[in-house]
Order: sequence, then structure tokens, then C-alpha cells
Amino acid sequence: MEVYVDGVGMVPFGKHPDRSLVSLMVDAAREALQKSKQSEVEALFVGAMNPEEFTGEGNVAAAVADAIELAGLPSVRVETASSSGAAALAAGFYAVASGTYSSVLVVAGEKMTHLSTPKVTKILAEVIEGYERNSGASMVALAAMVTQAYSHRWGVSHKRLEKSLCRIAMKNHRNGVFNPYAQFRKEITEEQYFNSRMISYPLRLYDCAPITDGAAALVLTKEKRDVKVTGLGQGSDTLAVRHRTHLHMFAACRSAAAQAYSMARRDPRDVDVAEVHDAFTCFEIIGAEDLGLLDEGKGWRAVDRGRTEVGGDIPINPSGGLKARGHPVGASGLAQAVEIVRQLREQVDPNIQVKGARVGLLHSIGGLANNNTVVIIEKSDTPVHPVSWEPRYERPVEIDRHHRPDPSRVSKEGILDAYTILYVPPEGFPSPLVLGMVTTYSGHRILARAAAPTTFKVGERVVVEKEEDTFYFMRYGFTQRVAFRVSRTLRGWRLRLKRRIRL
Amino acid sequence: MEVYVDGVGMVPFGKHPDRSLVSLMVDAAREALQKSKQSEVEALFVGAMNPEEFTGEGNVAAAVADAIELAGLPSVRVETASSSGAAALAAGFYAVASGTYSSVLVVAGEKMTHLSTPKVTKILAEVIEGYERNSGASMVALAAMVTQAYSHRWGVSHKRLEKSLCRIAMKNHRNGVFNPYAQFRKEITEEQYFNSRMISYPLRLYDCAPITDGAAALVLTKEKRDVKVTGLGQGSDTLAVRHRTHLHMFAACRSAAAQAYSMARRDPRDVDVAEVHDAFTCFEIIGAEDLGLLDEGKGWRAVDRGRTEVGGDIPINPSGGLKARGHPVGASGLAQAVEIVRQLREQVDPNIQVKGARVGLLHSIGGLANNNTVVIIEKSDTPVHPVSWEPRYERPVEIDRHHRPDPSRVSKEGILDAYTILYVPPEGFPSPLVLGMVTTYSGHRILARAAAPTTFKVGERVVVEKEEDTFYFMRYGFTQRVAFRVSRTLRGWRLRLKRRIRL
Repeated sequence: MEVYVDGVGMVPFGKHPDRSLVSLMVDAAREALQKSKQSEVEALFVGAMNPEEFTGEGNVAAAVADAIELAGLPSVRVETASSSGAAALAAGFYAVASGTYSSVLVVAGEKMTHLSTPKVTKILAEVIEGYERNSGASMVALAAMVTQAYSHRWGVSHKRLEKSLCRIAMKNHRNGVFNPYAQFRKEITEEQYFNSRMISYPLRLYDCAPITDGAAALVLTKEKRDVKVTGLGQGSDTLAVRHRTHLHMFAACRSAAAQAYSMARRDPRDVDVAEVHDAFTCFEIIGAEDLGLLDEGKGWRAVDRGRTEVGGDIPINPSGGLKARGHPVGASGLAQAVEIVRQLREQVDPNIQVKGARVGLLHSIGGLANNNTVVIIEKSDTPVHPVSWEPRYERPVEIDRHHRPDPSRVSKEGILDAYTILYVPPEGFPSPLVLGMVTTYSGHRILARAAAPTTFKVGERVVVEKEEDTFYFMRYGFTQRVAFRVSRTLRGWRLRLKRRIRL
Repeated sequence: MEVYVDGVGMVPFGKHPDRSLVSLMVDAAREALQKSKQSEVEALFVGAMNPEEFTGEGNVAAAVADAIELAGLPSVRVETASSSGAAALAAGFYAVASGTYSSVLVVAGEKMTHLSTPKVTKILAEVIEGYERNSGASMVALAAMVTQAYSHRWGVSHKRLEKSLCRIAMKNHRNGVFNPYAQFRKEITEEQYFNSRMISYPLRLYDCAPITDGAAALVLTKEKRDVKVTGLGQGSDTLAVRHRTHLHMFAACRSAAAQAYSMARRDPRDVDVAEVHDAFTCFEIIGAEDLGLLDEGKGWRAVDRGRTEVGGDIPINPSGGLKARGHPVGASGLAQAVEIVRQLREQVDPNIQVKGARVGLLHSIGGLANNNTVVIIEKSDTPVHPVSWEPRYERPVEIDRHHRPDPSRVSKEGILDAYTILYVPPEGFPSPLVLGMVTTYSGHRILARAAAPTTFKVGERVVVEKEEDTFYFMRYGFTQRVAFRVSRTLRGWRLRLKRRIRL
């Protein structure tokens, strides 16, 4: 059964100190219902990542149904971390496509800005695998290592890549100027980007999406409308980043994309406009490559050439993306859908309108890319490919599902796959905190802390030592190992001394 | 498209201090997959109410897919408070029925026993509407008021009703003895029931389902199997209990039941065995009445006559129900489905096997009955009704969706609809805490605290006064009002004195 999009709605993203999460969702939902040709819906699908901890309120699906005066209707919350909004859209799609309901309301939101940044970071970090989180890895630290792995895999120097990352930040901020729903509506300069604080080397403040309040909504219906959802794919990956075969790309985006393209009978060449999950600037390049929109390993070059700008051949994030529109985690995926629908309906500011866009795609990442959703939305009258046509998307990769446990024996040699210098580490960790991914010669990948806070070279030979539950890595060389042993002994003495004093 | 049930799995419910939530879910899922004829699945649907706060781990859908070595597959979490397991089943159903996937794994779980009871109660209370929660209402307090409203509505004296509640507790504990998956496998006596501690008058400890760890799983497929899901309904209600037209029944269960019966083309007479959400014993009576299984207002009598026992004409909770099997909140709805499937497949202990059961029904309540799911599961070869046949279920009630705000003027008279004496109030409230629902003559229903901790008579005339944000109620009479004024004045003096001392 075909599933069409009726009205869409959204509240301006940003800080809403006086509003509750539910009231933001209600505003977005009311707008979507008012703009629908037929405003009766039969069920609600609600996306939110963690309203319990962000706001202290649970039961959000029933709360939204009640607040919008639709109590009685089925109302279900869907959660897949930061892609919850897109996952709610998917759940609503199945409910209509199965013939159970003839129209449903999908609404997603998150409220975060009332909490302090460390508190928000802590809540967001709950989606990280336990060992990696306990080693001090936050989302930005893992994203930084992914960025490094990308630059190493494709031989792009850090100096070269950061120019592209800067261009993405500038492009998305410029697009945001023309989007009344964006949190940031102000251009940034190259100077501002390069002067912005390093958060987790090589990622700066302007590489990261902000903390935001916001909500978005849309109505799905089986009645014919001008826009329809034609493809939908979801894919998960190992919770731990270190368990993945490849660090420089997201296999789960590729499996989601493969499903979505095949369901829609489209391929990357058909996509006119895309909203890509740029929680960190580098994710926009990796995402576009995973989706087959840009050539593998050359995405950064396409950015430099302006191909992803509104006037380019494959405009990405004309809305400003997560970077400028803001990133209320559970809402972002659905906000992307709303932006795509508005692009197809030509309802956006002329400066960010992609002319003649017929096929749009949204790409939403949950967690550190372990629960991703790709959705293809198109104008209903878009010509379909002939029956003989086969979609051409050739980037899915096999996910290695089988776990190799962390090695129990210490003192292994290996290669440093990526590392980061985290300047805002979680509570209880020293700043700066240097974390690295090491592939040992036994074939295990380990997340380790540097024994000393120095810089490294990705690809260099390192030594890993285990102390209690933590792995430490250091440069392969006599002095480093001696230094580590000495520092360990000193730490041991200090600990014993402390205990004695306490006793 | 028809949706069949393949393998089912479950871990024994109870305390699992050494296990993580994900590992419990993996065990249940592995069993379901092993028992499936075709163990390949294409997607996962995960039910859990609040793993973030219970266990500190988010992203549970991706975590489960990864832990069961199915990383790569789409995996989505579904949440509707304590009915999350049943809602995950519904989401899986839509995904298969829409033709998107040919088979999916549904798994649900919760881990709670490692936390202290006050901490668990606090997390569970997040699903209660804000004003009611801030007035000191916990789940048990609201359930106690519902119980009182039931007894008042149908003119059953408290003494009479508590005998039936005792019989339900005894029946479910007796059934639990024969269920290897039950948390409590020990009969209780009438004496034990009546000697058990009063938690929130009129509910005793043995009226309440316990705190439990557990997980359940099943595989849904479009391939023909011996059991299929034929009906499914979901319904929400106002978040605030005081906003409901009727306190003595759950309108949201009725709308869910109406959908399920109509989808399955069945009616209450066809149901051979039912798993009813007995988080509190009285909910089993109210649930059975809402579902049309027992006559309205006479459910308690049917219980007394043994009609709901395994040998009775409408066996309810042969598994022991939430009372004896345990209530790991997010898992319970799916565990009910597993129990029903095992009943239909005659895989349970002969002492609790309902002979010749062909049509089973499960009823799962989310929050204080504001997000409920009803599912009908039957043997695939059950004769279908002729086309001319119309399902006969005549209990749906209109839900009043429009909010009447709490009155701003104080000192109103009204009628006491229900009240409770809560002996384990939330932190910061005096014990015992007396809470009441009052319908004022202006037509508003108010949740208020008693000005003095005395007993009341449901239906009596009371006076409501507002002090700061809290409503207080007292018996309609000169002395009470004077006493309240005096106590208020004294409290004011005490407060002012305190402030002066601090300054």
C-alpha cells in the first residue's frame, strides 16, 4: 500500500526555557494536523530519545496524545537513540502500509537546553558501549577517531581535511540563515572556525552540532497526496565502535541505504536533495559516501568544489543540517523529513530551495552509528523507472557480527588505527585525555588510553599494556615502556600511601 | 497478510543479580530463535520501559541486536510504559503485515531488582501525570482509588470486595506454583493475605505485583505456523487519572479491546484463555470486565465462584499473572503473549493447562491505564466465523478528550469519589498520606490531600481548599473547616518562625 505525506509541522529549534517537551511536540503536531487535507488521524507514533532523564517525565506517548486532545487513540513511542525521529516515521509507515490505519500522526521531540552541558553529555553517553564509556570515550571522542580513521584510510592529511570540515560548517551555517526553523541563523567565517576551541582533536567546537530543544511532526496517510514515502531502510551495527571491521565508514548506514533504495527502486543518481546526519561535520562526508551520493574517499573534495551547496549537483543539508538547525536528538530524524517534504513542495526560502527537486533522501544516525535509518521521499508524480531497471547501489558491506573478546593477556604490539585528544573528558578523567584504537597483531581491536598525553601518528606501531581493567598504549620504543613502568610504580606507591594515611 | 508466531522464549522471572538486562533479553531471544522452524529473522523489535534509569544503559535496541550477534539488522525499541512488551509485539506485527519483513524477532525485558524499592517506585512514578505525582500519588495510590471507585460504583462493600481480591491473589499464586517461569512458586493462605501489610488502603502487599527481572521473546513470521496473531488493538487515555469521566474502569482498555475483537472478527465469547494485567489484584476484575469476559460490576462475584480458575469457564492468568509470575515492567506484555502461545500449543504444566484452548487474549496496561494493548492469538486452524457474523462487543466508552483545567478559585464543595491512605508515601510526604479524588459541584475533578489523616466515606460531601499549589479536602462540617484554618495558621507561624531563625 502506498503511504503519502499530508501536513507537516515544526517548532523553531533552539532554546525554549519556558516550554515543556510535550508542549513543543503538541505545537508541531497541531501545525501538521492543521496543514493536512484531512486532519483525522487514527494513531500516533512518538519519537524521543530519553525524555525520562532529560525532563524527568515518562510515558511520553500517552502524554502527547492526551495534551493534543487525542486521548483514546493508540500512541506508541519509538526509540533508537539519536535517530528516534526517523524510526518513529518508519513505525508510522509500517502501520499505514499494513492497512491497520488509514492515517497516523508522527511526532518527535527532545528538550535538552535546560540542563548543563556536562549533564547532557553524560545522558548522551549512555548510548555508548559500557567498556568504551568507562574508558572515557564520549560521542565526540569516538567521532574524532572516526574522522582520523577516514583521513588515514583515504590518505587525506589532517590539514587538508580540516579545510573541508570548515567548508561544511560554513555551508550549513549559511544555509541556516535562510531557515526560520534553524537554531543558528548567522554565517560563520573561516577565521571563526579555526579559532574555535578544540573539543576532541581533530574536531573543533564548530564541527559539533549544538544542544537544542525542538519538535517536528507529520501526517502519513493512505489517501493520495503530492508527496509520498517510497523507500525506507534501517540498520544496526555493533554497539562498540572497536568491534567494527571498518572505522572510516558506517556499515549500518550502508545496509539501511541498500534497503531504502531497493524498496523505492531508486539509486543515488536519482536523489535531488539530501538531509544527512551531520552531528559532526565529518559525518556529512562519510554519510554522503555511505549513501553513494559522493565517490568513496573523495567526498571531501566534492565539498571543496561546492557540489553539496544549494546550487551544486547534489545539495546536502540545505536546511542547515544538524549543525545550524540544531540537534534535539530524538527530533532530528523527523525534522529532516519535514525539511525534505518542504523542499519537494517548494515551501522553503528561495535561497535554499533546490530547484526542481523531485526525490529527497534523509539519513539519520542513532548512537555512534549503530542504529541508522534512511528514508526516501518523493513527489508522487515522479516518473518511475521501467520494470527492467535495476537500482545501482553497490556499497553495502558485510558487518562482522561475531565478537572477538578483548584479549586477556597484556603487552601486545599493534598498529594505532586512530586516536584523539579529548579536552573535555567525562568526570573523573584527566584533561586532556588521549584515547586510541589499536589493532593488535592478534587481530583484536582495543580502545586504550595513552600512557602519557602526547601526540601520535595514525598507523604507527604501538605497545599495549593492561593495568587493572584499563588498556594503555604507548609508542613502540624502550624509553616509552620504561617511562610507563616508572609512572605505574609511582602511581602504585601513591595509592598505597593514600590508603595508609586513610587507615 | 497473516502473521504467525514461530518460536517463543522466556527466562525465569525473578531476581537475577548477576545478569545484565541485555543478557537476559539475549537468553530469551536465543530460545525463541532456536525453537523457530526457520531461525532467520530480518528485523528486531525491542520492548523496554526505562532501561536508561533502571540500568544506566541506553541504545538498548542496538545493544540487543549486537549481543545476539545480529548486528546489521534493523532494531527498534518501542515504549508505552508498562505495556512496552505488548507494544513491541504490535510494532513487529505491523512490520510483517505490511510486507516489509518476512520474519521478525520481538524481545522485551526489564531489570529492576538491583535497585531499592523507593528508587524503583520513584522511576515508575515518572509515568504519572505531573500534578498528581507532585501531590504524592504513586501507582499504588492511584490503583487504590480506582479500587475504591469500583467498589462504590457497583455497591460492593469493601469487606465483600477484599474477599475477592484475596481469592485472586491466592489463585494466581497457586497457578504460579506450576509455572517454572514464575517468580513466586508458593501458595499463599487467606490468613497470609489478610495479615499482609496495608500499602495503600484498601490495597495490601499481596494485592501488588512484585519488582522483577525478566525477559521474553517470540518470532513473528509470514510463513504458516500453528499459531497466529489475529487481532490487535491499542488505546490511550488521559495522562491524569482525575481527568477521566469514569474512575471505576479503563476506557483505554475498552477501545483497545474493540479494535482487537473487530480485527480478529472475534468477541469475548470466543476467548478460551486470557492473560490480564493484574499489577494490582483489582485490575484483574476491572480488566476482565473491560474486555467483556465477565459481566460489568459482577466480576468480583465470578471470581468468588471460581469461574476464572484454570478449570473455570473463563480461565484468567493460568500462568500466575503479574502477581505470581512477576512484573518486569517492559517485559510483562510480551511474557503474556508467550504464555498464551504455550497454552495454545499445550506446552504448560497439566495443572495449569486450559484444555482445548484455541483462542487466547492478552491485556497489557501501560502507566495508570493510559496506554493499553490487547492482542488476540489463536490456533491457525480455529474455525472462522461465517461472513455474515458480526462481533458482539458492546463496552467501548467515549473518552472525554477535552481538558477541564483545575479550578483556580478555592473553597468549593464536592463529592468524594475515592480516597486512599498511603502508608509508603514518596519522599518528602508525611506517612500516612491521605489522598482523595473530589468532583466539585462545578464539574471539575480534583486530586486533593486530606487536611487531617482520618478515614472518609466514598460519596460523602467534602469541602476543598487550595493552599499554594496543593488542594486539601475535609469533611463538610463546621469543626473540620475551623480545624483546617487553625492548622494552616499554625503552619504559617511555624514557617515564618523557621525563616526568621535561619535569617
